[in-house]
Amino acid sequence: MHASAGLVGEFYQLVLAATYHGDGLWGEATFDLYPRALPAGWGYLVAAGLEPILSMLEAFSFTEAEVRQLAALPAFSRAPSSFFDALGRLRFAGDVAAIPEGTPVFPNEPIVRITAPIWVATMLETRLIQLAGTATAVATRAARMVDAAAGRPVLDFGSRRSAGGESSLLAARAAWIGGVSGTTNAHAAIALGIPPFGTMSDTFLAAYGRDAAAYDAFRLHFPDLGYFALPDHDPLDGIARFARFKDRVNAVRIDHEDLLPLSRSVRASLDTAGMKHTRILGSGQLDETAIARLVRLEAPIQMFAVGRALAAGVEPGMQLAFRIAELQRGAVRSPVTRAGSARYPGKKQVIRFESHDLLCLDVEAGAWSRTGAALLRPVMAAGRRLSEPEALTTIRDRRAAMVQALPGPLRLPVATGARDVRISDGLAALALAE
Amino acid sequence: MHASAGLVGEFYQLVLAATYHGDGLWGEATFDLYPRALPAGWGYLVAAGLEPILSMLEAFSFTEAEVRQLAALPAFSRAPSSFFDALGRLRFAGDVAAIPEGTPVFPNEPIVRITAPIWVATMLETRLIQLAGTATAVATRAARMVDAAAGRPVLDFGSRRSAGGESSLLAARAAWIGGVSGTTNAHAAIALGIPPFGTMSDTFLAAYGRDAAAYDAFRLHFPDLGYFALPDHDPLDGIARFARFKDRVNAVRIDHEDLLPLSRSVRASLDTAGMKHTRILGSGQLDETAIARLVRLEAPIQMFAVGRALAAGVEPGMQLAFRIAELQRGAVRSPVTRAGSARYPGKKQVIRFESHDLLCLDVEAGAWSRTGAALLRPVMAAGRRLSEPEALTTIRDRRAAMVQALPGPLRLPVATGARDVRISDGLAALALAE
Repeated sequence: MHASAGLVGEFYQLVLAATYHGDGLWGEATFDLYPRALPAGWGYLVAAGLEPILSMLEAFSFTEAEVRQLAALPAFSRAPSSFFDALGRLRFAGDVAAIPEGTPVFPNEPIVRITAPIWVATMLETRLIQLAGTATAVATRAARMVDAAAGRPVLDFGSRRSAGGESSLLAARAAWIGGVSGTTNAHAAIALGIPPFGTMSDTFLAAYGRDAAAYDAFRLHFPDLGYFALPDHDPLDGIARFARFKDRVNAVRIDHEDLLPLSRSVRASLDTAGMKHTRILGSGQLDETAIARLVRLEAPIQMFAVGRALAAGVEPGMQLAFRIAELQRGAVRSPVTRAGSARYPGKKQVIRFESHDLLCLDVEAGAWSRTGAALLRPVMAAGRRLSEPEALTTIRDRRAAMVQALPGPLRLPVATGARDVRISDGLAALALAE
Repeated sequence: MHASAGLVGEFYQLVLAATYHGDGLWGEATFDLYPRALPAGWGYLVAAGLEPILSMLEAFSFTEAEVRQLAALPAFSRAPSSFFDALGRLRFAGDVAAIPEGTPVFPNEPIVRITAPIWVATMLETRLIQLAGTATAVATRAARMVDAAAGRPVLDFGSRRSAGGESSLLAARAAWIGGVSGTTNAHAAIALGIPPFGTMSDTFLAAYGRDAAAYDAFRLHFPDLGYFALPDHDPLDGIARFARFKDRVNAVRIDHEDLLPLSRSVRASLDTAGMKHTRILGSGQLDETAIARLVRLEAPIQMFAVGRALAAGVEPGMQLAFRIAELQRGAVRSPVTRAGSARYPGKKQVIRFESHDLLCLDVEAGAWSRTGAALLRPVMAAGRRLSEPEALTTIRDRRAAMVQALPGPLRLPVATGARDVRISDGLAALALAE
């Protein structure tokens, strides 16, 4: 059931590509991948997904069998045969500029800018939206929760709620970029070096006749894994189980929809039981608003485990757009300003100043980039990467520093105010051109 | 970044497996994969994901490199080396029984029942929950929307909102089982034979200087694809674009959060323009409640395109559990009734009667299965499939017939009443045993 990168997209992109190709529209086009808006109450997005996108572009191709199967679809019966020939030979040989992963971005700022023949760029749309959309959603959600947790670790327990495989690795990587302190995902632990986490649950106890036997077996083989779940049905009673090895219980997990009262009574019971060193890990429908509330009310929870909020994928209101911004027709390369094109036309740059961002034409950027930072950097030329993949820690540190530097109101669970994103005169003139 | 099936799970399942293995707990165990509850307002679930699960079980293994990397994790430094040896040689050789895909199921009914050494079965938990959870969520969501649409086709436009790759194919397959009439997913169209759909959008027009040139090119190569989007900013005005080839416009798509008034005015404009044959395809945050409302109010919409509701994955309240039900300790195989085990212990069967379901012990099932239908069937023995994969149309037809046969109140967008799932005396006695 595996498919080449070329086929993992939407049917209609292939239809459009065939039409462009058959119609001789082979000119280079520049497409922008950008957020149209922010979900209600969000003050920023954390760009993520670039590295998976570059890997996808390097692998972008169709097998002979796939080309044959595509050509055999009834809808393609009158599609030009030259298109299928080209598809069989296709490798991505375009140019890519991108805003580095981990950077906060705002509506209409291109996070990835691709220049390639229009019929090729068209076929990338769905994969780009899937990869960057999912990664950006998860990284942003993680960053917002980490911010709300005010220094307490947030753990990514989303793996089992995902569809698994590639998508859960993509999400685990994005959550780590967003600042979580660990993951339940074994593949992410091994492939990406993210610290693995989990708590010893009642399921394990069930296989043993006596709890003591279960704990002894576990502690023999995993003496340093000191995270234990308290039973949902009777968490306070569960504390007594640990009496024999209470010094080695680093944390207990409580899972409940109302963690405030429960965490307080568990804390009191732990203290009474001589387990002041044991931290409390809380879970149960947590999101940034719930975490901020627990922190504000000083709930005695030292760690937050988040499942669904990190596995929910693309949030309503934050879908990415991949739209044409510039096109070469014959010998002329010109901005595209018709309906259906990018919100702002032309090949653009994003300049970040302390107080605001400026969206301008690439040719205007030189002047501005002396006082501000140009965010879009070339990452691929003629289909080849211009540098090694960034280390995940570099990306994660960038996110930490740049989110930290955002104004407080944008970082609230319900953001107040919005980033000032200005449009250069040159760009504004173009946008009005038609 | 690809990993063997064995590694695509949660870290803690590997920890537990190592503990069981190191502790000599090698006995056969039977685990149930079952829904604990239904999301609020849902009257049933459509079981799905079995075929991907069987493929996963056939591929379940670890590469040498993965075993080495796992053993090198600090947490595993004192895990038994015999575990890693066993891991390197491991293939799934257990028995599997399952309720056929497409069957409506209810809380506590095992949709998949796996018998294997406990340390092996333990490692399957996350993958089973991911695959069956995602597929069941999507198939159920699709079935509920198809039901609400009362004969009008529902199309799966969820692909671009997913994380892509494996997960979007899994979802497209499940949506088809649930009854959608087509997909935007190219891979699903080719690999699974699901009819591909999509609408010609403004993005395509943007690349051309004049709309007429764009439409001519498109119609030359795809004369039979008669689905066109109306522009969001001015849908009524957009109808005039089609004047030259209005006979070939099979459907126009409108995308709006309030489709009722818009569909009525578009219908009137189409009729005035001599396009009575042109159907309206509606999209915009659609779910079963919205579709039912539009149908009830007789909105002139002939087809519904659904994105997010088919890509949202596992709904709150429907997470699947994978819990131990029976275990062989030494020479004795006995039901597990401790906290952390399955809600009902023992190796079970589900008998479907017209008026109710009966959850009973496998050994009790013979008597009941003369008057009712035993739903769990053996599908794998000693790691080998007992039959060819079911045809998707068989599964889809089963879903259609069996959902149709459910009482009306369970099929409502907000279900009233619940299926009567009874517990046999033998099972009830066991559940009370401890």
